Amino acid sequence: MYETIRTAIEDRVLTITLDRPDRLNAFTATMCEELIAAFDAADADDGVAAIIVTGAGRAFCAGADLGNGAATFDYANRPDRQSEAGSPIRADGSVDYDHPAIRDTGGRVSLRIFQSLKPVIGVINGPAVGIGVTMTLPMDIRIAADTARFGLVFARRGIVPEAASSWFLPRVVGISRALEWTATGRLFDAAEAKEGGLVRSIHPADELLGVGRALAREIADNTAPVSVALTRQMMWRGLTQQHPMEAHRLDSKLVYARGRSADAKEGVTSFLEKRAPSYPCTVSGDMPEVFPWWEEPPFTV
Amino acid sequence: MYETIRTAIEDRVLTITLDRPDRLNAFTATMCEELIAAFDAADADDGVAAIIVTGAGRAFCAGADLGNGAATFDYANRPDRQSEAGSPIRADGSVDYDHPAIRDTGGRVSLRIFQSLKPVIGVINGPAVGIGVTMTLPMDIRIAADTARFGLVFARRGIVPEAASSWFLPRVVGISRALEWTATGRLFDAAEAKEGGLVRSIHPADELLGVGRALAREIADNTAPVSVALTRQMMWRGLTQQHPMEAHRLDSKLVYARGRSADAKEGVTSFLEKRAPSYPCTVSGDMPEVFPWWEEPPFTV
Amino acid sequence: MYETIRTAIEDRVLTITLDRPDRLNAFTATMCEELIAAFDAADADDGVAAIIVTGAGRAFCAGADLGNGAATFDYANRPDRQSEAGSPIRADGSVDYDHPAIRDTGGRVSLRIFQSLKPVIGVINGPAVGIGVTMTLPMDIRIAADTARFGLVFARRGIVPEAASSWFLPRVVGISRALEWTATGRLFDAAEAKEGGLVRSIHPADELLGVGRALAREIADNTAPVSVALTRQMMWRGLTQQHPMEAHRLDSKLVYARGRSADAKEGVTSFLEKRAPSYPCTVSGDMPEVFPWWEEPPFTV
Repeated sequence: MYETIRTAIEDRVLTITLDRPDRLNAFTATMCEELIAAFDAADADDGVAAIIVTGAGRAFCAGADLGNGAATFDYANRPDRQSEAGSPIRADGSVDYDHPAIRDTGGRVSLRIFQSLKPVIGVINGPAVGIGVTMTLPMDIRIAADTARFGLVFARRGIVPEAASSWFLPRVVGISRALEWTATGRLFDAAEAKEGGLVRSIHPADELLGVGRALAREIADNTAPVSVALTRQMMWRGLTQQHPMEAHRLDSKLVYARGRSADAKEGVTSFLEKRAPSYPCTVSGDMPEVFPWWEEPPFTV
Repeated sequence: MYETIRTAIEDRVLTITLDRPDRLNAFTATMCEELIAAFDAADADDGVAAIIVTGAGRAFCAGADLGNGAATFDYANRPDRQSEAGSPIRADGSVDYDHPAIRDTGGRVSLRIFQSLKPVIGVINGPAVGIGVTMTLPMDIRIAADTARFGLVFARRGIVPEAASSWFLPRVVGISRALEWTATGRLFDAAEAKEGGLVRSIHPADELLGVGRALAREIADNTAPVSVALTRQMMWRGLTQQHPMEAHRLDSKLVYARGRSADAKEGVTSFLEKRAPSYPCTVSGDMPEVFPWWEEPPFTV
Repeated sequence: MYETIRTAIEDRVLTITLDRPDRLNAFTATMCEELIAAFDAADADDGVAAIIVTGAGRAFCAGADLGNGAATFDYANRPDRQSEAGSPIRADGSVDYDHPAIRDTGGRVSLRIFQSLKPVIGVINGPAVGIGVTMTLPMDIRIAADTARFGLVFARRGIVPEAASSWFLPRVVGISRALEWTATGRLFDAAEAKEGGLVRSIHPADELLGVGRALAREIADNTAPVSVALTRQMMWRGLTQQHPMEAHRLDSKLVYARGRSADAKEGVTSFLEKRAPSYPCTVSGDMPEVFPWWEEPPFTV
């Protein structure tokens, strides 16, 4: 089905594997489209309770594929990057910076992950550079192999950070780490990533995927999928709210709606009976009517 | 005076004790009202320089009281949760989600603590679950007994996080921890709470309250109450500001106003004379005229 | 040229030294003007790739100069603080709090550093108190001598935090540390500063400046100045954005513009050729036309 990724669902956990191991899973426009499609499918599939993203072979993702050499980022002159939306280059050679064809592919992926209704665990099995790091920022949990290396190398390539990372990075790792890592563009190891809050924990490479699966299982086995879908969006959207009253208005509605649901009855009852829960509600059919409570902003305004 | 809490003022430190030890201090609608009343009284009392919140017996707060079993969160069908504001259930059975009667009690408490003019120290002496955690997020400092346990268990009960925690939690512990703790709903120990920034420090259970009191004393003995009240609101409201210029406009006014005050003269003089300060200004009478600089948003818009 | 600071450029690194060692580099209105002038000059000078700020002698900056004693913060009655903009005191003795003459000098400095196009490294060689701390918050990286001491002592002087620190501090160190440090006003050591995220690392006093220079070199030797200038503003302004789509719109434009630049070609080519880069673009001449993408808000509205 896919050219650049592989997907497999096992026991309600979807694993998406970046699958261009000969190119260290370097990111391409095709990978962008395929990742978006995989997340769309996961949201629509009640058989998916959690998602793992990892890389095939020894790398997680080496960043943009530099196979086009010096022309790599010169999108206007790369035939493979010409868009159905036409060209942002005007007849006089100037650039129409409001043209949809300049839209960053990395940002399309990171915004799609931001919108995911299923929790996402980044299992960073090896080098993660450029978009290989920034695409993981909207994931819920990031764990790394002790052999992983990281680099926000944009300023070393003469470009700038992408994938909406100027929003995500300072919120995930704090503004000071964000500034240091992007200003130096340095490669850093898993220990520095953990100290800075970029990854949650470090594991031997051969145990890493098992840790990721255990986290996915912890979610899938214990929590109500509708609750998790709502909670994920509440937390991320909470960062877009200016005042806690906005959160209070929203969670009042959602607790009221969910409190009446069969899931809440099962959640309390199974807890009091000290048994494993079996939640009846589905993401496809039972989201409360106040969902979604936001309007997704368009790219062009 | 109160049914579900106890309050005591000693040497300008108010201690509020959640006091339903036989129910592990589980949260009720009465506790909501009483906590709000206690914070109202504290703000109005110049004899209170700092506030400690802790739990009676072996728990801090076990969360919502599950005594109603499967009906616990089904507010529309719980006689004890019927409101003077009437019912949000319309004649046709649909829910009016803009009805004030759906307002979350946990959120009323957390927003009241957010608005406090006195600094608040959470002394988490034992299990803190659900609202037992989320009510502490708007507190200034949280310390925990080594025996404390924490759980943002909402998704395990089929509901969603409340008490405006989608605003507070990612800002207090970072978005990654917020997502992991709310998606798994796991119980975690004090060490994990400290690593994630949920508590500042961990102490033997029998020393914990002493540490909390020492922190309260450090504030009460050294700082000007009006300065502390303003500073607390400046920092929390600073998180609601979009641009640092907003903070600059505000602190320019406040430094100008406070710089002319008797407190500033005492603060500088006592420092230069290397003696303990004695600040003359009071929160009840001497707040600068630019306070409050915000309008509190209403619940229903 | 300057009275209160010294500046020196060596190998594309500008060092600004607060230079009133007999007053522990205490902050004055003159120092405010001179720091702003130094940052203006640095932004206009393509020979500056990174900036270090440190203190002469044993202190970094002891805060506001208390030489005026009890009148220190009583600006209306300090002849040296009278403004060309006139007096905010009206004929009837009341204060016009919207008057530009009340503008905080510390905030003018911190907002100027916020706007810097060159990355700024705070080399905190000794005591940093009051504005001595808050002026460092908009810097990119802060490192400290093991002998450094810190204090957000405003509430101990009867005033309130300034320099827009109610915006910067909770974003740099988290709201909980911000509240504890400003409510207690305590002096704390370098270890507590590092644990709270106020400084990145601690070093023996005689090695500190070398570490700062190495960080500056890491930036100057490896990254494209235009990329760094844009990246710095993207990250800081990213904190002022409400939704990640705003970042996506912006970085799409900037990657497109920078991807066509000679810097991007040199960045990719030098990487593929495993040699040191030599970026042709300059901050003075080659910023993309979408820069600046914001409007700087005025002090008075």
